[in-house]
Amino acid sequence: MSHPRTVHFSSRAAVLFFALILLPVTALFSQSSRMQINESALKLFRPLPAVMESPDNPVTDAKVKLGRMLYYEKRLSANQQISCNTCHPLDAYGSETDSVSTGFKNQKGSRNAPTVYNAAGHFVQFWDGRAATVEEQAKGPVLNPVEMALTSDAAAVRVLASIPEYVALFKESFPKDKDPVSFDNMALAIGAFERGLVTPSRWDRFLSGDESALSDDEKAGFNRFVAAGCATCHNGAYVGGNSFQRLGVAKPWPNESDVGRAQVTNQNADRLVFKVPSLRNISKTGPYFHDGSVPTLDQAIRQMAVHQRGTQLSSADVKSIITWLNSLTGQIPAAYIELPALPKSTATTPGPITN
Amino acid sequence: MSHPRTVHFSSRAAVLFFALILLPVTALFSQSSRMQINESALKLFRPLPAVMESPDNPVTDAKVKLGRMLYYEKRLSANQQISCNTCHPLDAYGSETDSVSTGFKNQKGSRNAPTVYNAAGHFVQFWDGRAATVEEQAKGPVLNPVEMALTSDAAAVRVLASIPEYVALFKESFPKDKDPVSFDNMALAIGAFERGLVTPSRWDRFLSGDESALSDDEKAGFNRFVAAGCATCHNGAYVGGNSFQRLGVAKPWPNESDVGRAQVTNQNADRLVFKVPSLRNISKTGPYFHDGSVPTLDQAIRQMAVHQRGTQLSSADVKSIITWLNSLTGQIPAAYIELPALPKSTATTPGPITN
Repeated sequence: MSHPRTVHFSSRAAVLFFALILLPVTALFSQSSRMQINESALKLFRPLPAVMESPDNPVTDAKVKLGRMLYYEKRLSANQQISCNTCHPLDAYGSETDSVSTGFKNQKGSRNAPTVYNAAGHFVQFWDGRAATVEEQAKGPVLNPVEMALTSDAAAVRVLASIPEYVALFKESFPKDKDPVSFDNMALAIGAFERGLVTPSRWDRFLSGDESALSDDEKAGFNRFVAAGCATCHNGAYVGGNSFQRLGVAKPWPNESDVGRAQVTNQNADRLVFKVPSLRNISKTGPYFHDGSVPTLDQAIRQMAVHQRGTQLSSADVKSIITWLNSLTGQIPAAYIELPALPKSTATTPGPITN
Repeated sequence: MSHPRTVHFSSRAAVLFFALILLPVTALFSQSSRMQINESALKLFRPLPAVMESPDNPVTDAKVKLGRMLYYEKRLSANQQISCNTCHPLDAYGSETDSVSTGFKNQKGSRNAPTVYNAAGHFVQFWDGRAATVEEQAKGPVLNPVEMALTSDAAAVRVLASIPEYVALFKESFPKDKDPVSFDNMALAIGAFERGLVTPSRWDRFLSGDESALSDDEKAGFNRFVAAGCATCHNGAYVGGNSFQRLGVAKPWPNESDVGRAQVTNQNADRLVFKVPSLRNISKTGPYFHDGSVPTLDQAIRQMAVHQRGTQLSSADVKSIITWLNSLTGQIPAAYIELPALPKSTATTPGPITN
């Protein structure tokens, strides 16, 4: 008699065990396998646009074709060895591995070359915001004596006007212009090309509603990124690139020799103020910061926490944040950046200057 | 004989006097009448768009017509006395004169109602950025118990669905929807309306190339604004509205009871972090700051300098900055905000709740 009871009791106990113990545990696991992302912080972010349009420089096929060629055009430098792509190599996420780039006569630049990918969408250009647009930015290095080092707008035009293929492409790109081969139009063509240098990633798919585009670890990493206060400055479509902030608000930056935006404004209030960089493709664009002083992303995150937020992150935090940041690594638009064949010089094309 | 010499000498002296004294003085005046604006700082600014478009909510005539009506619709509040326009009156630059607004049962809000003009272009909505878009924002006050105080989405839909004119307008605005009268669509219509609430001013004309659109005093005021460091945060098309910043970085804000974005994120790093407000129409949208604690623009500017930049501005600086800020006062789009006739309630329309 006791036997059936026992059995009866056992089967009840099994039901109870399942209901009280196993079900909640199962629920716990199923919850952890659907990691909750911080929804309120998500509101700060946007997917990338397909093209970073500007009303001032409509993106046309003709301009993009020409701009792509000019982007690789070494004859726009004094020694004819340096192009935009030299310091912003498109097959390496648009930035290079040196802290600062090497220009004409092996001169070194003073700041880390930022990636050209997704840059056209930033609110201003350069680390110090001294150019409003990529079109304006594109003119800078061509004439900068430590970069491509042409001595004048006219020097660039002399090269371009001497090559019939370029003359034809400028006419096609700027059909209403009386004088289509100009320094301004060179910059417009390069800018139009750069406006398509967008690298959507799984993060964009996630933001567009595909919950499965991020792993639980990546969602957890996003939550840690937010918890560490990073999203206060790194937000929007570019995860940065939309505001200035002062470097070293919590602890002074180790090297204050570069005064940042104050160099542009001559205002003490802008000392050590820099554009907040975008974190798109950040795993691929080291070394980090305006001075290229930090080689690893791990160290860069720790340093930001200390200097901007006054906090020390644990190794687990840093690792988790990197896990999310990796989801910002996007696809390089391969077809779009296909290496173009460049037209040959003619008898009237100026030659290189090496000294 | 000395007489002609003297005359001769005098005429030479006159020439010299003119050349050495008068010419430079004339040049000085002519220079001061073409006041040089800070060109490099200008790059941080953009003219307003004609409409603040969003791919997620295309602006159509039908939605704008409906949204305008809903913006003034008091039956979307529990006591049927409060509309969007109550706290964001469009004929008074979209904000009101009280520090905080008065809602259902005379309850007070906790933050100053920001202007709805040009708001759709901000990177996030509300002082703490808790909504991503104006569409999302528009839902908040309708259901907030201290504001319009409807108890549910369904309560709003009950009102709208009971009025045949609204049902027809929702169908027209959302022709593909099976169930066009919805709380989401209410928000989309209001949002589409708000995306046209743009107030271009002389500043936009100036940015678009009309040098004569600003007076010399205004240009000088802009330069002082920049020199005081204001443009580091207040920039872009909206002269703000594009980043978060911490209030009181140089000197703590007098009242720290409102922790700002930390209320949304529960992160200590976001304590006293607020969205940088737009300065468009700032002369017309006092009182100032999230707490509405400062009644005059003069005092607001001084307080910003002290609390954010750690500087004391002279009265001349403040006056000059205000002179420029006045150029940001734009035209209210009169035709666009024309008071709409609202359809009558029917037998099935819920009545007001007053207790």
